[in-house]
Amino acid sequence: MNGSLLVDNIGELVTNSPGGGGGPLGIRRDAALLVEDGLVAWVGPARYAPAADRRVDAAGAAVLPGFVDSHAHLVFAGDRAAEFAARMAGEPYTGGGIRTTVGATRAASDDELRATVRRLRAEALRQGTTTIEIKSGYGLTVADEARSLRIAAEFTEDTTFLGAHVVPAEYADRPDDYVGMVCGPMLAAAAPYARWIDVFCERGAFDVDHARAILACGQAVGLGVRVHANQLGPGPGVRLGVELGAASVDHCTHLSDADVEALASTGTDDGGTSTVATLLPGAEFSTRSPYPDARRLLDAGVTVALATDCNPGSSYTSSMPFCIALAVREMRMTPAEAVWAATAGGARALRRDDIGVLRPGARADLVVLDAPSHLHLAYRPGVPLIRRVLHNGVPQ
Amino acid sequence: MNGSLLVDNIGELVTNSPGGGGGPLGIRRDAALLVEDGLVAWVGPARYAPAADRRVDAAGAAVLPGFVDSHAHLVFAGDRAAEFAARMAGEPYTGGGIRTTVGATRAASDDELRATVRRLRAEALRQGTTTIEIKSGYGLTVADEARSLRIAAEFTEDTTFLGAHVVPAEYADRPDDYVGMVCGPMLAAAAPYARWIDVFCERGAFDVDHARAILACGQAVGLGVRVHANQLGPGPGVRLGVELGAASVDHCTHLSDADVEALASTGTDDGGTSTVATLLPGAEFSTRSPYPDARRLLDAGVTVALATDCNPGSSYTSSMPFCIALAVREMRMTPAEAVWAATAGGARALRRDDIGVLRPGARADLVVLDAPSHLHLAYRPGVPLIRRVLHNGVPQ
Ligand SMILES: [Zn+2]
Ligand SMILES: [Zn+2]
Repeated sequence: MNGSLLVDNIGELVTNSPGGGGGPLGIRRDAALLVEDGLVAWVGPARYAPAADRRVDAAGAAVLPGFVDSHAHLVFAGDRAAEFAARMAGEPYTGGGIRTTVGATRAASDDELRATVRRLRAEALRQGTTTIEIKSGYGLTVADEARSLRIAAEFTEDTTFLGAHVVPAEYADRPDDYVGMVCGPMLAAAAPYARWIDVFCERGAFDVDHARAILACGQAVGLGVRVHANQLGPGPGVRLGVELGAASVDHCTHLSDADVEALASTGTDDGGTSTVATLLPGAEFSTRSPYPDARRLLDAGVTVALATDCNPGSSYTSSMPFCIALAVREMRMTPAEAVWAATAGGARALRRDDIGVLRPGARADLVVLDAPSHLHLAYRPGVPLIRRVLHNGVPQ
Repeated sequence: MNGSLLVDNIGELVTNSPGGGGGPLGIRRDAALLVEDGLVAWVGPARYAPAADRRVDAAGAAVLPGFVDSHAHLVFAGDRAAEFAARMAGEPYTGGGIRTTVGATRAASDDELRATVRRLRAEALRQGTTTIEIKSGYGLTVADEARSLRIAAEFTEDTTFLGAHVVPAEYADRPDDYVGMVCGPMLAAAAPYARWIDVFCERGAFDVDHARAILACGQAVGLGVRVHANQLGPGPGVRLGVELGAASVDHCTHLSDADVEALASTGTDDGGTSTVATLLPGAEFSTRSPYPDARRLLDAGVTVALATDCNPGSSYTSSMPFCIALAVREMRMTPAEAVWAATAGGARALRRDDIGVLRPGARADLVVLDAPSHLHLAYRPGVPLIRRVLHNGVPQ
């Protein structure tokens, strides 16, 4: 797949590279884009496009950066369709079902786990997700967390150690011992395969002192910090994330004024915040819960990302377009804000500047829609609108 | 494409043919299905499956009747993405934008209209919709309504004359004259291409007397009755539909007790109602409106169908799986009720017994999911789960 490739006949090019009057999405009309060696080599007016070895004709459609799904739990076995149906019939979501998946995951072979990750990674890629973060968290033994991350690392650079997902049943009476194990042998076994560390900081999972201890241990061995925070109720998770310089605090469904102020206080020179609020509306959809208040965060200047939370319990969707449609319908984000959050926002939540943007030097990760404008991702909910995907410059 | 075809290795076969302990969906395990001459020829245990010329291996997945989308407006030109974005930013939906589409539709050539119907019909088929009703209603002149239906009839047997969609601008001051035109020359030109007649009976569109007059004219020339009723507020549309023996009243967002009782009073010997309540949750999603109360209708014994309302103004989705997910999340239908409503319910709303069911003699219209159970259509929202489609027995 060597040689240059020109994407042209683009109706609307979303670059996420501001300037030139294209608004926050950096929209260009009559543009073309040249790919070389897996990277964007040139973006400019179609009439000045350089010659190339191959061509992708966008046929007047919109072209966007590939989606960056910065929060997904893909290493698991079994499904929880029956639990889902019971919840839709009225049973509340407490997170307790995670242990069901832990049992199935421990019992699965490496190849079974790998096949599930492969299937879901491919499904996400077909829907335009060119970067996906993958967490452990359904093993919860030293060996099972390490192998979960080893398998995840076969599919992504952004692997996250989530040994502190829940306290497993065998440690139910001695959570301190479990935290000690997570910080000790489990972290040691997991860290070689992980870029990030994450904790589910929530009533029924890990309290703030345990969460702080675990995240600090991860930082000490060079892992970046992310936190599952304030999903099921108010709590200290978001402020803990800010305190530790987390790249992202995820869920943010129940926030106090102090939480929003803490996030806003991480503001950077470029107008964003260094701790991103990652909203996961698929979880609220699938647990029939109230949605986070995206407008409050945006109005306070907090950088917002959208991600799927893809997992078999509370949000078994791999569809970033679905999350965009929910963000617009349910969280009053504009279509432009939602598309930015699902691309550039996800990149910021992963502290990466090589993705989520289409400018020279960035990865040539992009999608061609079956539509003339990014608006259609919200305007046409549920419709598979991803016509083509280029990943590292390679047509999929 | 002659010869017989066996679908086997089915994990879960939804037949919608009750009996045998499979619940309302008539679910069979370890079943196989034989197709001959475009029809289902045999359904039974896989171990007794007859020999066949070809085979479709369902690989353990769920197999369902193809979706029956009984409410769609596909004959139009232009889109209203900007209106959608403005509405999401706070502007209310009044239906007034229909006139924008009328202007674009009148200005379009036959081939342009045909290309749009073809594109959307193909998009729906890829998502498992094997039967789709198509309405006119964006022409609103004698010639434009007739050509809309002529083009629609190239794609479906279930065409619906909706000359009474709104009063067009040129008749704004003399709605009686427009109604006279609809009942006279427009109906005469449209009827040869139409199976159904429909009226948008709503404040701002047609009042109950005009609606009754128009529907009665249609009945007099042999068209079946359907009504757009009680979408934007309470009103007489549902009761008018029952009075005229409508096959379906569509939207049903704002119902009084008397409306529900009227629908229930159309009960038939088989436990359903002869007037179906067709719910269109894509419209509530895309106009950010409250959803209809499906449980109230189901608990009253009313037959419920789900459809997309696919149109460029208020619901530009062609996805029946998306409507199923919304019905479960937002209208508290069980996944089984929602799947039934999107298949057998749609068939009843079109008064057809050859579709929406998989039993000998029915059309071989079916979908193979990328999932082991019908539950996944709600459990995995937004994910394209349609792996294969057979339409009239022909793999697509
Ligand atoms: Zn999560
Ligand atoms: Zn309609």
